[in-house]
Amino acid sequence: MSGLVLTTFDWVPPPPRGFVRDIRIRWALEEAGLPYDVESTPFKDRKTEHFAHQPFGQVPWLTDDGLSIFESGAILLHLGERSEKLMPADKRGRSDTKEWLFAGLNSVEMASLPWALCKFSGEPGDNPIFKQFESFLKVSRLPHVENVVASREWLAGPFTIADIVMADALRLVDRFEGLKDFPATRAYVARATTRPAFQKALADQMAHFAKAD
Amino acid sequence: MSGLVLTTFDWVPPPPRGFVRDIRIRWALEEAGLPYDVESTPFKDRKTEHFAHQPFGQVPWLTDDGLSIFESGAILLHLGERSEKLMPADKRGRSDTKEWLFAGLNSVEMASLPWALCKFSGEPGDNPIFKQFESFLKVSRLPHVENVVASREWLAGPFTIADIVMADALRLVDRFEGLKDFPATRAYVARATTRPAFQKALADQMAHFAKAD
Repeated sequence: MSGLVLTTFDWVPPPPRGFVRDIRIRWALEEAGLPYDVESTPFKDRKTEHFAHQPFGQVPWLTDDGLSIFESGAILLHLGERSEKLMPADKRGRSDTKEWLFAGLNSVEMASLPWALCKFSGEPGDNPIFKQFESFLKVSRLPHVENVVASREWLAGPFTIADIVMADALRLVDRFEGLKDFPATRAYVARATTRPAFQKALADQMAHFAKAD
Repeated sequence: MSGLVLTTFDWVPPPPRGFVRDIRIRWALEEAGLPYDVESTPFKDRKTEHFAHQPFGQVPWLTDDGLSIFESGAILLHLGERSEKLMPADKRGRSDTKEWLFAGLNSVEMASLPWALCKFSGEPGDNPIFKQFESFLKVSRLPHVENVVASREWLAGPFTIADIVMADALRLVDRFEGLKDFPATRAYVARATTRPAFQKALADQMAHFAKAD
């Protein structure tokens, strides 16, 4: 197999469409202008072959010649090392990109995903565990994101893989109206998601899953 | 400032001691045999200087000559690039280490941390949100971890930064007796945490916080 091949599910139910993690990889590939193919793996009947590429039975994974890589964070880092449109070449720029990549995943999404999962499964209202996650996200994390993105266009200087992760994580919060009190953060998400590469990635993901309906 | 300087809080309350994130960095530095100094930042009154290094007001951060890096995942990756005791030098070994580093953080800890936070704040019992996180961790994640660590000593071949993250994340699950049904995973955590470098890191963190009591 030569070249870049991105594998995602053949189909998913409507609610997560537009938010399946292959979108982060599509987005990066479109930003970089790297040619790639998309392949499918069954959603409903996950085979041994799937677990050989992705031990948790999730998607996506990327193959790049002989290498198979899972975890969207690891794939983004791999692509960042292939294209300066995704990660600057200088030492400081590379370091800043990587720390913000991890910050998007492990400071922000570590708080936003549990919050969003509570929202996905109904109206959590006064549930004390939901209130704990609400505070984790809206008191301990989003005010700091707001401070950062109020004073800079992108997290690490130029647009990078860190912005792909951060904007995509925050886009899910916005879907459940969690960014109402954070105008600079909403503006940052809008800046990122109006980029043509994101729009192409989103349209392609929606079309991919719709094809199998 | 020359050399490696790890900054953590001057003090934390007893419950999180032994689990504050600087332990992952101490552990890596001890494995690699890299000399380092530890400095403190106030826990109770977090200053502008703190947020300049760590925009979320958390710890740790690492300075390496002119570079200041936050996010324990990013710091571990930086150290992995400095020492082959933390990340193999060959392309495949580096790629496997990085994907498992992200897997520890974003597939396993993304499920284990919300679960542990529920446990930290009391006995969640039948709370439907807790039950959702219990299933996320124990049905969607741990059985896959169990399969992997049953058949290999370490995640990426030799011991790497990926094992530091995975074992430390799972150690917190074990603290709340969440690994009872996963004997290979418990054995993996024991393999990792009996390493002298972890024992030194743990003792040093406990002593550091006790000093300020």
